[in-house]
Amino acid sequence: MQIVLIEGDGIGPEVTQAACRVVAATGVKVDWVKAPAGIPAATQFGEPLPEETLEMIRRYRVALKGPCTTPVGKGYRSINVRLRQGLELFASVRPVNTMPGVKTPYEKVDLIVVRENTEGLYAGLEHEVVPGVVESVRLVTRGAAERIVRFAFELARHRGRKLVTFCHKADVMRLSDGLFLECARAVADDYPFIQFEEKPVDNVCLELAMDPSGFDVLVMENLFGDVISDLAAGLIGGPGPGGGLGLVPGANFGTRYAVFEAVHGSAPDIAGKGWANPIAVVRSAALMLEHVGRGEAGARIERAVIRTLQAGVGLTRDLGGDGTTTTITEQIIKNLGA
Amino acid sequence: MQIVLIEGDGIGPEVTQAACRVVAATGVKVDWVKAPAGIPAATQFGEPLPEETLEMIRRYRVALKGPCTTPVGKGYRSINVRLRQGLELFASVRPVNTMPGVKTPYEKVDLIVVRENTEGLYAGLEHEVVPGVVESVRLVTRGAAERIVRFAFELARHRGRKLVTFCHKADVMRLSDGLFLECARAVADDYPFIQFEEKPVDNVCLELAMDPSGFDVLVMENLFGDVISDLAAGLIGGPGPGGGLGLVPGANFGTRYAVFEAVHGSAPDIAGKGWANPIAVVRSAALMLEHVGRGEAGARIERAVIRTLQAGVGLTRDLGGDGTTTTITEQIIKNLGA
Ligand SMILES: CC(C)[C@H](C(=O)O)[C@@H](O)C(=O)O
Ligand SMILES: CC(C)[C@H](C(=O)O)[C@@H](O)C(=O)O
Repeated sequence: MQIVLIEGDGIGPEVTQAACRVVAATGVKVDWVKAPAGIPAATQFGEPLPEETLEMIRRYRVALKGPCTTPVGKGYRSINVRLRQGLELFASVRPVNTMPGVKTPYEKVDLIVVRENTEGLYAGLEHEVVPGVVESVRLVTRGAAERIVRFAFELARHRGRKLVTFCHKADVMRLSDGLFLECARAVADDYPFIQFEEKPVDNVCLELAMDPSGFDVLVMENLFGDVISDLAAGLIGGPGPGGGLGLVPGANFGTRYAVFEAVHGSAPDIAGKGWANPIAVVRSAALMLEHVGRGEAGARIERAVIRTLQAGVGLTRDLGGDGTTTTITEQIIKNLGA
Repeated sequence: MQIVLIEGDGIGPEVTQAACRVVAATGVKVDWVKAPAGIPAATQFGEPLPEETLEMIRRYRVALKGPCTTPVGKGYRSINVRLRQGLELFASVRPVNTMPGVKTPYEKVDLIVVRENTEGLYAGLEHEVVPGVVESVRLVTRGAAERIVRFAFELARHRGRKLVTFCHKADVMRLSDGLFLECARAVADDYPFIQFEEKPVDNVCLELAMDPSGFDVLVMENLFGDVISDLAAGLIGGPGPGGGLGLVPGANFGTRYAVFEAVHGSAPDIAGKGWANPIAVVRSAALMLEHVGRGEAGARIERAVIRTLQAGVGLTRDLGGDGTTTTITEQIIKNLGA
């Protein structure tokens, strides 16, 4: 099975390498096809996301991606945004759940943030009306709204709680979020066996901060999703810098392609030191295995990560240990079981 | 001194009444001028925010406001948004700090959210391009951006930490948040004695969720402010529904007028039962006293609230007690000291 590997920059090569080792240890044979993105690509090809990388994902359909930096100040558009738009990866999925052994204020968190990935304020439509007056357009279309809400309900179908929460700000954006809300309600009608609730995005933030354990699947437009997925990750995070972002996996799905990615940064300050925590990309690889029909191997990885955190041996510094990328990876592999 | 009092609906009359009692007990003589808004106003005048109410605030300059419900489904625009726009209350200020005796995951939180109140997606500019395709406009102007950032620096000047954090999403909204960021940097240059940092809004949410104690003054555009002020309130909240919103005061400032308000809802389910926690509006009244030059009385109220929470006597149910609006108000008055 050929899968594109984007190592990225900073700690990217180290953590993706760890993920490849763990995948190999499950016995699933993956032929990784490397594709450049981030600072090395910008240096080598003058472009942080070369067209060839997009082409390779189009050819092989699936990619695993480490953190990639979009160099600032040269007018480059964000690599992540271009990947999503170029491949029409319309759904970003971020499962956030309490991990054992990681001290956090909140427990029993088990939610998924589903984010519309192609529209809203990310459509890139902006203009200067007169000097000092700028308008950005927040775009909502029926097609994209229905598609993302349906996607969320399909996820909820296979989860225990069977609850979908739609987040909006329809009392302020009566037309755009009015349309989104109308679409969400119409889709919800098709799923009478799944509970549906609609809440203003500020209420959702408040409730997440107070007690995130009541949520199951959350679905929303692009920028709300950006904010809420980081907020949710923060709530289950460990003590290290980046906290929960070092633990949560990410996935971006389109009709034809899927990209699995760690959503944390590339941490250039510790790059090459061997200290990086690879869990986020290892868990992203587990989601990837599920996507390519190797759910059993994916589930084994997920269980192994949990056992590793529980045992607390070989953990990296951000998790309060004194281990390295190598020691934690070896623990995960050991914990894969038979 | 004449000050407009908007009692609002639901628990509004009970909690504003409590605030008036506390203010009276400080010895500051206020002649409250009642003005209608919310459900009673909608019923009586066919308009939840009658023009006369705006006129009264224009006349007396300052108002204290309880929670007001904008009735849904009749095409009314939000009372809060209309107040802010009609009076050009360009700055919303939400101080969020850890209160003693309230069990929360975080300690030592002491931050202020400063929110631009007149533009962004709240400008109300939306249109349907074709059926199923809607655009909302996010407006950023140099004048409003500079004004709000300057306001934040002026607040920071009088606080211990002297740190202003500007939240943006300039990597995605290069023109609109690019302009805002440029204005923020220019204003920051005028305050070399105050530390300035700029952070993407998603990072800020992550960091708030992980450890809010590192922030001092946060400044941002309208919708980011909506989300982040509720998030921050959630982090210091008590166990009751609404959590931190029952504790944090709110203020909206313009060049000429100021409106002080509880930002929680009107809790119709407990209205009239005498159970409502008045602390948010009592503390808003303390901010109001500071604004009208009675800072010493305001500070006494703030200290009395803290002592009351510390002592834990007479607290309302949302705070884990079995008291009433009356018992907690009497405790606050008792704790005003000489
Ligand atoms: C890098 C940035 C453009 C991106 C986003 O805003 O979507 C990131 O924050 C994310 O969530 O993947
Ligand atoms: C009621 C609503 C329009 C308002 C807002 O979004 O500003 C509220 O959430 C607030 O924060 O005061």
